[in-house]
Amino acid sequence: MRRIRLTLAYDGTDFHGWQAQPGLPTIQGTLEQAVAEIEGKPVKVLGSGRTDAGVHALAQAAAFSLDNTIPLLNLRKALNRLLPPAIRVLEADQAPDGFHPRYHALSKTYEYRILRSEVCSPFERRWVHHYPYPLDAAALVQTAPVFEGEHDFSAFAAADDGDEKKGSKVRTIFSSHAELCGERLIYRVTGSGFLKHMVRNLIGTLVEVGKGNLAREDVAVMLAPGAMRRAGPTLPPGGLFLISVQYPAATE
Amino acid sequence: MRRIRLTLAYDGTDFHGWQAQPGLPTIQGTLEQAVAEIEGKPVKVLGSGRTDAGVHALAQAAAFSLDNTIPLLNLRKALNRLLPPAIRVLEADQAPDGFHPRYHALSKTYEYRILRSEVCSPFERRWVHHYPYPLDAAALVQTAPVFEGEHDFSAFAAADDGDEKKGSKVRTIFSSHAELCGERLIYRVTGSGFLKHMVRNLIGTLVEVGKGNLAREDVAVMLAPGAMRRAGPTLPPGGLFLISVQYPAATE
Repeated sequence: MRRIRLTLAYDGTDFHGWQAQPGLPTIQGTLEQAVAEIEGKPVKVLGSGRTDAGVHALAQAAAFSLDNTIPLLNLRKALNRLLPPAIRVLEADQAPDGFHPRYHALSKTYEYRILRSEVCSPFERRWVHHYPYPLDAAALVQTAPVFEGEHDFSAFAAADDGDEKKGSKVRTIFSSHAELCGERLIYRVTGSGFLKHMVRNLIGTLVEVGKGNLAREDVAVMLAPGAMRRAGPTLPPGGLFLISVQYPAATE
Repeated sequence: MRRIRLTLAYDGTDFHGWQAQPGLPTIQGTLEQAVAEIEGKPVKVLGSGRTDAGVHALAQAAAFSLDNTIPLLNLRKALNRLLPPAIRVLEADQAPDGFHPRYHALSKTYEYRILRSEVCSPFERRWVHHYPYPLDAAALVQTAPVFEGEHDFSAFAAADDGDEKKGSKVRTIFSSHAELCGERLIYRVTGSGFLKHMVRNLIGTLVEVGKGNLAREDVAVMLAPGAMRRAGPTLPPGGLFLISVQYPAATE
């Protein structure tokens, strides 16, 4: 039995997120169906983490075990034939036995895209957050690195944070960087892990800084132990992409 | 009463083409509803030409007459609020009285996009024709200019060409150019006008040259008076964009 690692791209617009849910189209559920068709029996597919409904991926990592001896290149082709065009297998590799895409991940990088032009192109509307209002982009860009380091991100967790309710909310952010590229504001964040809605709350808070509703100091306070102040609003999922998952060399 | 000219972008994927049809979502029908809401009575909206079901536009031209005295900038905003995000008004300008976007057009430019990479990105799937098979791109590129000039394009008209059945099939192609850009093959054609399905038949014929099924000479024969040979297959609409419509300076 081989352990297989997939690198996946998906347009999350029409899916109810990563996690399989009975009767709803999800990335995990759709993948498990495709893999089961090849294996001839049910197969559990694990991901590096759950993406929320409407969130996209440029390179999500997933893994499963297979008895079928199909060559890897053919496996990729067969999966892409079975999957809808909104989900594509970019790579199918052999992974070490026991490879777990979530536990073995060192870090993940997300990107949030804000489009500031007055009119939002029909060809981008699914993949940007359109925000054509005044924004102090310089203040936002300057504040972005405030999240770097090890902090208690309780203030940035979803109100309904499900399974994570009792766990630690401490996470390490390795890099938090916003950049203005013409009419686009691109926010990239790399961290050890992320709470539910956390990236959308981080950028939602930065946008409040850009709107002048919060100062950098107000944001720092949200990261202090026992912070009582809640983060800014959760921005819509369409602008969010999981862009990569980093693993130790030994699992590559 | 003012004559208004619109420049429009649309993602045609979910529309039954430009032309209004009862009970079906079309670009013209959707626009007429939005304009009628502003004017308070039905308004006829004319386009530079019909785009087929599933065909997109980066800058389609349309025109209508309005009694309402709303400033042009507000008109654009109001229309974009009323229209679905798949249709955007890029510009709303005042046009000369009697401006007709079809009769006054000097030429139109279309682009057809073919993606040759083995895997088609989920973020491009609606707007390219995915063709991951062997193709002699150099032969295709060399043959593309064969369509330039004034020719009888009967062989390139749709089998069901509707209103155009009895009209002349002679059209002038000012420029017909294919280019390989990495994994993309981009075909651009500018002409005095186009028959139904003509652009998709032109590129469909060029792809047959790329596949080695036709030679440049075979294509030239299709343009000869009384040609009996039919063009190559009609490629799917998703790869086709109306990218601009050219007008004489006097109508600008």
